Amino acid sequence: MLKAIPPRFTPDLLWAIAAMGHGDRIAIVDANYPAHALHTRVLPLAGIDTVQAGRMVTALLPIDDFVEPAAFWMSPDGRPDENFEVHALFRDAVQAAEGRAIPFASLERSAFYAEARGAFAVLTTADLRPFSCFLLTKGVVRTTAPPKESP
Amino acid sequence: MLKAIPPRFTPDLLWAIAAMGHGDRIAIVDANYPAHALHTRVLPLAGIDTVQAGRMVTALLPIDDFVEPAAFWMSPDGRPDENFEVHALFRDAVQAAEGRAIPFASLERSAFYAEARGAFAVLTTADLRPFSCFLLTKGVVRTTAPPKESP
Repeated sequence: MLKAIPPRFTPDLLWAIAAMGHGDRIAIVDANYPAHALHTRVLPLAGIDTVQAGRMVTALLPIDDFVEPAAFWMSPDGRPDENFEVHALFRDAVQAAEGRAIPFASLERSAFYAEARGAFAVLTTADLRPFSCFLLTKGVVRTTAPPKESP
Repeated sequence: MLKAIPPRFTPDLLWAIAAMGHGDRIAIVDANYPAHALHTRVLPLAGIDTVQAGRMVTALLPIDDFVEPAAFWMSPDGRPDENFEVHALFRDAVQAAEGRAIPFASLERSAFYAEARGAFAVLTTADLRPFSCFLLTKGVVRTTAPPKESP
C-alpha cells in the first residue's frame, strides 16, 4: 500500500510496467485464458476485470505511437470482425488515458496466442466476458525536463 | 519509464515499497555501507544521494505513526548526539513529504547495523557524506473510500 497508488496495483504489476521498455507488450486477459501455458511471467489481478485493468495500466504506461496498431484484441477464429462490447469499452478506457485515438487491430484467437507469447508479462483478471483479451505495446515518455523526484 | 513516475524509481524500488507492509523498514544508506554483508535485498540507486532517496521514498511510502520513533539515523559509535548536516536535510525531506513532525532516533553505528539487518530492503546510494544512513518504518494509508483506479 502506497500513498499515491491504489492497492490494486500489485508490487509485481508495478515492477513489470516500470521494467518494460519501448516496444515491449503486456497482455491483459480474461479468466479463461491459458496464461501459464503461454507465459512465464503471469501476474494475477484478483477481482479486476479487463477494462479496469486496462485503465490501471494505461494510467501509467504510455501506448506506442511509433508503430501502429499498438493495441490488439482477440476475436473468434474465422470471425475477425465480430463485435464485442468489451472491446469497445476497453478501447474507450485506453483512449481516455492517452487522450487520443488508439487504433486497435483484431487478432483471431490462434493468432492472438502466437503474438501474445512474446509479451513481457500477462495480467490475468476475473473477467468472464468472451474474447476479453488484449495486447498493448509500450511507447515512450517524451520530456526534456530533468527527472522530478516526486511521482 | 512510466507516465507519472520518474525513471529514478527503479522497478525493484517500486516493487519493494509496494510489497512492504505496516512495520516493515527500509534502509537508505551511503556509498560506504556494507549493504551486501547485511542484507539480501540490495536495491541500487545510482547517482542519487540519500536525501533525494528519502524524498523519493516518502513521496509514496507512509511513515509509521503507531510506534515512534519510526525513523533513525546512524551516528558514530560513542557519539550518538553528534550533529551531521545530512541528518537535518534528510529529516526535512521526510517531514515535508509527510506534512508533520517526524521524530528521528539516533543509532550508533553498531546498533544501526543490528537494527538494519531486519529491514525489508536497503537502498544504496552514491552519497559520500559520513553517517548518511537512515532507517524508515512503513506506516499505513487510511481511507474509507474504495480503491481508485488511476494512481
